[in-house]
Amino acid sequence: MRIQLLMTGNELMSGDTVDSNSALISRRLGELDLQVVRRVTVGDDTGLLQDELRTMAAVSDCVVVNGGLGPTVDDLTAEILAAVAGVPLEEHPEALAHLEQWCAQRNYSLNAANRKQAMLPAGCRVIPNPVGSAVGFELSVGHCRVLCTPGVPSELRLMLDWIVAELRQALPGPPEVSIQRLQTYGLGESSAQQQIADAVPQWPEEVELGFRAGAPQMEVKLTVRRQQDLPARQRCRDQLDAIFGDHIIGEGDSELAAEVLALLAERGQTLATAESCTGGLIASMLTRVPGSSRAFHAGFVTYANAIKHSVLGVSESVLAEQGAVSEAVVREMALGAMARGGADYAVAVSGVAGPDGGSDEKPVGTVWIAWGSRENLHAHCFCWPIPRTLFQTMVAAGALDLIRRQLLDLPLMSQSMSRVLVDA
Amino acid sequence: MRIQLLMTGNELMSGDTVDSNSALISRRLGELDLQVVRRVTVGDDTGLLQDELRTMAAVSDCVVVNGGLGPTVDDLTAEILAAVAGVPLEEHPEALAHLEQWCAQRNYSLNAANRKQAMLPAGCRVIPNPVGSAVGFELSVGHCRVLCTPGVPSELRLMLDWIVAELRQALPGPPEVSIQRLQTYGLGESSAQQQIADAVPQWPEEVELGFRAGAPQMEVKLTVRRQQDLPARQRCRDQLDAIFGDHIIGEGDSELAAEVLALLAERGQTLATAESCTGGLIASMLTRVPGSSRAFHAGFVTYANAIKHSVLGVSESVLAEQGAVSEAVVREMALGAMARGGADYAVAVSGVAGPDGGSDEKPVGTVWIAWGSRENLHAHCFCWPIPRTLFQTMVAAGALDLIRRQLLDLPLMSQSMSRVLVDA
Repeated sequence: MRIQLLMTGNELMSGDTVDSNSALISRRLGELDLQVVRRVTVGDDTGLLQDELRTMAAVSDCVVVNGGLGPTVDDLTAEILAAVAGVPLEEHPEALAHLEQWCAQRNYSLNAANRKQAMLPAGCRVIPNPVGSAVGFELSVGHCRVLCTPGVPSELRLMLDWIVAELRQALPGPPEVSIQRLQTYGLGESSAQQQIADAVPQWPEEVELGFRAGAPQMEVKLTVRRQQDLPARQRCRDQLDAIFGDHIIGEGDSELAAEVLALLAERGQTLATAESCTGGLIASMLTRVPGSSRAFHAGFVTYANAIKHSVLGVSESVLAEQGAVSEAVVREMALGAMARGGADYAVAVSGVAGPDGGSDEKPVGTVWIAWGSRENLHAHCFCWPIPRTLFQTMVAAGALDLIRRQLLDLPLMSQSMSRVLVDA
Repeated sequence: MRIQLLMTGNELMSGDTVDSNSALISRRLGELDLQVVRRVTVGDDTGLLQDELRTMAAVSDCVVVNGGLGPTVDDLTAEILAAVAGVPLEEHPEALAHLEQWCAQRNYSLNAANRKQAMLPAGCRVIPNPVGSAVGFELSVGHCRVLCTPGVPSELRLMLDWIVAELRQALPGPPEVSIQRLQTYGLGESSAQQQIADAVPQWPEEVELGFRAGAPQMEVKLTVRRQQDLPARQRCRDQLDAIFGDHIIGEGDSELAAEVLALLAERGQTLATAESCTGGLIASMLTRVPGSSRAFHAGFVTYANAIKHSVLGVSESVLAEQGAVSEAVVREMALGAMARGGADYAVAVSGVAGPDGGSDEKPVGTVWIAWGSRENLHAHCFCWPIPRTLFQTMVAAGALDLIRRQLLDLPLMSQSMSRVLVDA
C-alpha cells in the first residue's frame, strides 16, 4: 500500500509549530508495516492544497491529510477534498449531531463557525473524534482512500486508533511485522549502539534495530517482518537484557513514574517527595499516572530554606552551615518527607537549576539527591550543566530511576548518571 | 523569493525522529520575511530524492536541502545534487582541509568514510560548519540556488547564521516585516475569531491576523510587511485590547506562571500551592520560571485525605462529611497552605482527574478551586470532562489565571472558565 501524508497549516510553514503529528502517524502505520513514502507540507492555501492532493491521490493507495478541520476560514480541508473528488460540500447529519452533543456537554451554543465543521464532502464517511469538536472523514478519490484528520495532537492520537483498525481490515492478511519496543533510561544512543556492536558483532540482518532518543527515556525498537524471525528477535532481546538489562524500564510505553508506582503498590508501600530545584515536577510525573494515589500520598515543594525547616524539619544550623544544596540537607528532607507524609520511601532533591545562583563550589547544574527508606537512605551529588527546564526534567527522571533501582535491587545508578556523578 | 525545503532521512519517514529542523529553518528565514512555501520529506532513496529536487529547483528561487551530509552510504545529498545539476562529484580542497583539521583536533585519523564527506558537486561553494565534520554546500541549478545543510540540529543552527546573512545580501533592501505576538489565556480560537469579526468588521487587510492554539495558552500574532503599516497594527492591537484585554497575559513569550510571579514579586508578596488532583503541576509550572524563588516558597501535594489533614490542617470532620472534592475542603487547604507556607496568597485544588473515581454527583472532570488571600478567598467548582493529563494541565493553568486576575483586579474568570463553571 503506497501511502503519502499531506500536512497542512500556516503554522507549520512559518515554523511556529514543530510538526510532531507526522511522526505519530508514521509510527502508528508502522505497526501494520505500512510505510509512508512521502510527505508534503504546505500552508492554508486552496490552490496549493488542491494541487498537492490531486497529485498525491493519483499515485497513492492512501493519503492521510492532517490539519485544517477547525472552525475558521483557514481550515480548508473539507473544501479541498470536495473539489478534488468533484463532489459538493453538504451538512453531514452525523457530524452535526456530534457537534451538537459536543457543545451541549460544554454549555456552548452552536455558532456559525462551529457549524462549518459539519459541512463535509458529499458521500464521505465520518471518522469519530472522541474528544474534539471536529470529526474526521474519509472519501475515495479514484482508487485512493483519503483520510482527513485533525491537527490537534490529542484528537489525532485517538482518531489513529480507528484508522489503524480500519486499515488493518484492508490488508490481504494480518500484518506479519512485529515490533517490540523497550523503554530504557540512562543510556546514550551512541554509546548504546557501540555497546551492542561490541557485544554482538554478528547482529542478525532480519532483526531491525532502531533507537528513538527522548529526554529522559530512550526507546529501543526491535522489528521483524516475518513471523519466522521471532526466535531470532527473542535471542536479540536476550542479548540486550544481558548488555543493559538494568537500564530497561519495561516494554511498550512504560514510564519511569508508572513503574515506580507499580512496584510500590505491589508491596503496599508508599513514596513521598521533597523537592527544591525540581519544584513539584517529580510529584507531577507521579500523579500523571492513573491510580497513583495507591502509592503516592504526599509531596512537599520546599523551595525556600525557611520552609525546608518549618515543613520538613531540616535543622536551621545544618542549613546555615552546609547550605541548602548539601548531603545533610537532602537527607533531612527525605527523612522529613517520610515522617510527615507517612511514607516508606522518599526522594529528596536540592540543587542549582540556574540560570543564576551558581558558585565556584556549586556551579549551576549541581544537585544533591537523597533516596531510599529510613533504614537504607542514599545520597549523592550530580551535575547536569544544562538549561533550567531540561535540568529539572533530568533530575526528576534520575531521582525516579534511583528509587526504581533500589526497589528492584539493581545496581545503584545508570551509566548516564554515573557519568554526571560529582562525589566519588 | 520562492523557497522550498527538501527534508531527507529514513528516520523522518518512520516517525522515529520528530522533525524540528524545518521549523528552525522557517523561523530563521522569517526574520528576512522569506517564506517557505512548500516542504517535501522523503527517505534516503536516490530516485525519489532526484525527482523531488529536480521538480523543486525548476519552480523555485531557492531550495534548502536538509540531511544526508554524513559519512554513511545512506547520505546521498552530494550525489543527488551533482546528478540534478549535471556535474561530477569531485574532492573539494576546502572541504578536505576542514575534515583534516576536524580529525586532527580530535586525534582521529581521517578514514574513508569521513573522506567521502569531501566529495562534493563540481563548482559548488562550501558553507562552513563550525562544529561538525560535514561542510554544507551551495550550487545553482538553473536559476535556483540549492543550499545543502546538515541534519544534526546543533550544526544546522550555526550554519543558518551564515545562510541568513548570505540571503540578506540577495534582498533588494532590509526586510520590513514586523511581527507582534500576544499570549492569551481563556479564549477559544473560534470564539475569539467570531468576537473579532463582530467587533471589527473592517479588519485592515495589511494587518495579518494569526492564531496559534496551544493548551492552555493561545497566541495571537499581528504581522505587517511594511513599516508604514505599523500605525494600522497599533489600532488593531488597541481593538484587541478592548475586545479581550483581560485575556491577554502579555507580549512575546509571556506565560501565565511567569506573569503571576512577576506581579507578586513587584509587591513583595508570595504564593503557596495546595494541590490534590494536579499533583504538583502548579508548583512545577511556577518553578520552571527562572527566579521563581522570589515569590514562591512552598507547595503542598496533599494527595491523600490523611495528608490534607495532617499537613494542611483540613478538619477531619469536614473531609468525612463533605468529601475531599468540596468547597469547604479547598478553602481549608488554601488557608492551611498560606499558614504553613507563610504566604500572602494561595491556590488550592481538589478534583476528580479520572479515569476512575467519578460519581453521579461529582463526575470525572469535577474540580473545586480556591484562590486568593486570607481576606479575599474565592472558591468555585468547574468541570472539564477531558483525559487525565489534559485535565491536570487545564486546572493548573486555570488556577494560575484566577490568581493573575485577582492580582490585577480583572473580572473574576475568563470566558473559557465561566463556560465550565458548575456552581452558578
